[in-house]
Amino acid sequence: MAVRHYTLDFILSAPADSSTTVRGLQSIFQEQEMTETVHNTEGHGYLATFIGKNGRFVVLRIHTYGLMTLDLQCYEADNLAQVDHLLNALEKKLKTVLHGNIRRVKRLPALQRGAKADRYWPTADGRLVEYDIDAVVYEEDSAYQNIKILHSHQFGNILILNGDVNLAESDLAYTQAIMGSGREQYAGKEVLILGGGDGGILCEAVKLKPKMITMAGVPRCAGLACPVPWCRLILDSGFHIDQLVIDGCRKHMRKTCGNVLDNLKGERYEVLVEDCVPVLKRFVEEGKTFDYVINDLTAVPISTAPEEDSTWEFLRLILDLSIKVLRPSGKYFTQGNCVNLTEALSQYEEQLEKLSCPVDFSKEVVCVPSYMELWVFYTIWMK
Amino acid sequence: MAVRHYTLDFILSAPADSSTTVRGLQSIFQEQEMTETVHNTEGHGYLATFIGKNGRFVVLRIHTYGLMTLDLQCYEADNLAQVDHLLNALEKKLKTVLHGNIRRVKRLPALQRGAKADRYWPTADGRLVEYDIDAVVYEEDSAYQNIKILHSHQFGNILILNGDVNLAESDLAYTQAIMGSGREQYAGKEVLILGGGDGGILCEAVKLKPKMITMAGVPRCAGLACPVPWCRLILDSGFHIDQLVIDGCRKHMRKTCGNVLDNLKGERYEVLVEDCVPVLKRFVEEGKTFDYVINDLTAVPISTAPEEDSTWEFLRLILDLSIKVLRPSGKYFTQGNCVNLTEALSQYEEQLEKLSCPVDFSKEVVCVPSYMELWVFYTIWMK
Repeated sequence: MAVRHYTLDFILSAPADSSTTVRGLQSIFQEQEMTETVHNTEGHGYLATFIGKNGRFVVLRIHTYGLMTLDLQCYEADNLAQVDHLLNALEKKLKTVLHGNIRRVKRLPALQRGAKADRYWPTADGRLVEYDIDAVVYEEDSAYQNIKILHSHQFGNILILNGDVNLAESDLAYTQAIMGSGREQYAGKEVLILGGGDGGILCEAVKLKPKMITMAGVPRCAGLACPVPWCRLILDSGFHIDQLVIDGCRKHMRKTCGNVLDNLKGERYEVLVEDCVPVLKRFVEEGKTFDYVINDLTAVPISTAPEEDSTWEFLRLILDLSIKVLRPSGKYFTQGNCVNLTEALSQYEEQLEKLSCPVDFSKEVVCVPSYMELWVFYTIWMK
Repeated sequence: MAVRHYTLDFILSAPADSSTTVRGLQSIFQEQEMTETVHNTEGHGYLATFIGKNGRFVVLRIHTYGLMTLDLQCYEADNLAQVDHLLNALEKKLKTVLHGNIRRVKRLPALQRGAKADRYWPTADGRLVEYDIDAVVYEEDSAYQNIKILHSHQFGNILILNGDVNLAESDLAYTQAIMGSGREQYAGKEVLILGGGDGGILCEAVKLKPKMITMAGVPRCAGLACPVPWCRLILDSGFHIDQLVIDGCRKHMRKTCGNVLDNLKGERYEVLVEDCVPVLKRFVEEGKTFDYVINDLTAVPISTAPEEDSTWEFLRLILDLSIKVLRPSGKYFTQGNCVNLTEALSQYEEQLEKLSCPVDFSKEVVCVPSYMELWVFYTIWMK
């Protein structure tokens, strides 16, 4: 059972007289049989709590400088038409009482707190956004992360790893962007995908008839003692890709991955269920090279200390190895982060200057539907 | 001066013992010199208010069925690092006290209430979404509507009419979709744009070297007595397009409209500052026809009674007249609404069957960056 939290704010031109305002609302609160408690705010305006029937309560705050906020919380199972009616009555009354002093009235869609299927997944730039989630399709805790696949009416199933929206079935734009936005010729080429456990890139790349695609996983807890008992087993067996992500996506993200995850090997591809770092090192030793390396491992870390952050270190390692397996005419594609995270993106670009082999890069800003923010993608090549 | 409203929710496996939970937090509240008031909820769990320094207060609610919600409100100008520290301390303590009983912890980005530049503009399907708004660029109340142009770091300037996000500078995808998604040949053609006061369609269409583009406005308050004194004047003068929208967009949406709004007449276009209904009627009488009619007047109304709703009536009128000025091989383009509003969209499609001239249609779902929801566009043609 969840709770609905309504907010109603009046932004005023001048401070409101709280006693007049409260007196205006009194008949409504009385009709609702709500009990008032006025709090001592020590000079910070008026604050009162009104406790009503069925677990409903209202917090009314009148700030001394011209802002009035009202919060109403009730159960999801409450009579919501009645609650709406109450809010309408309060809004109407306040509009009368504060007439001539109102700059803006703001009533937000109610927050749904404690619901079974969580609808709030903040953007990378820290904004509060609500999704039209109506069901939890898949949820597992792997050794590496919490894996959720939630159903959105408009975006289809959405893969969420550790609370980060990774990819939705609506997000072909992401896959196209990280493959070079349709400007590349994949036919007959050799391709290396790092990460990409949702199968989106693999699925789209296979359609373009490359010579061979190799895909290898991300070593999220390689070298670390995992808290989950069977993780050690996995580490020992060298099985470093997150099988639970693949399992969930194979079943529930088929608009994204098609049937490519049904088998780890196909006519034009092979999924190595191994940590990609030793795989890359092996390729370097063997002198194996690729036309395209697509790094779908992780977004650019949001951190102000790239020197100390292990994610940055990991990122540099992967970059360096990737450039080493790239043919002279080859391209390396990767995601950046939200376009608003200018500092993180600059830091990433600084890292590019520190590689053992000098590179150039271009970037592109793309709208990925389920992200609700604009996302930066990089193309990197050897100078 | 605005207020920050933080929420912290614990979704539990089993009901929590409220006295143990509250006792666990007591030292933190005491340290903060917060005064507790426990409310009588008449059997609906524990509810207490804690009033602190600087206008801070906390509302703690422990529901009898396994949900704990905590609200913390403070001033925007408060020491936010200190507030974060307090929230971290509360979260940490609660994780200890409720250990083994926690299914999910949810801490949302703080709501910013009463801020000068409003960041919350709900989607058409009623979801709460926050924008990265940092400035109010333009704000006017015209006779027809409230007009705002707000600046978003990632979307550029956003035109908001009566609280609805209309178009942002990032939204070329909208303009391209309502022009037929690049599948049409505009060169040498005659085009009629209805609405489109932001200049986006006009700007893009002009680039394609059509023979002539005619653009006419929307009669938002035609026939109605407007509350604004100078509106009557406008009605009398037959000046029914919202000049204040054009003024704002010409200045602040130049990435969208280029320079096409600088003059009402160009080599390939003419903006009729007139109500489009009499314009359409005149064209019908004169036997004037077009290759493309692009209706950018209004989204499909969200109403369950199309028979009684005047917006629907207006929509049918425009549709009927538009089809009458369409050449046999011509196409009519328009926006629908959010893909989630299936009922409203079905009703629109039913209206299409009732036109005086039989038509067919196709639709397309497009991601318009600043909308944060998927949007439906229609192409309509004569059978």
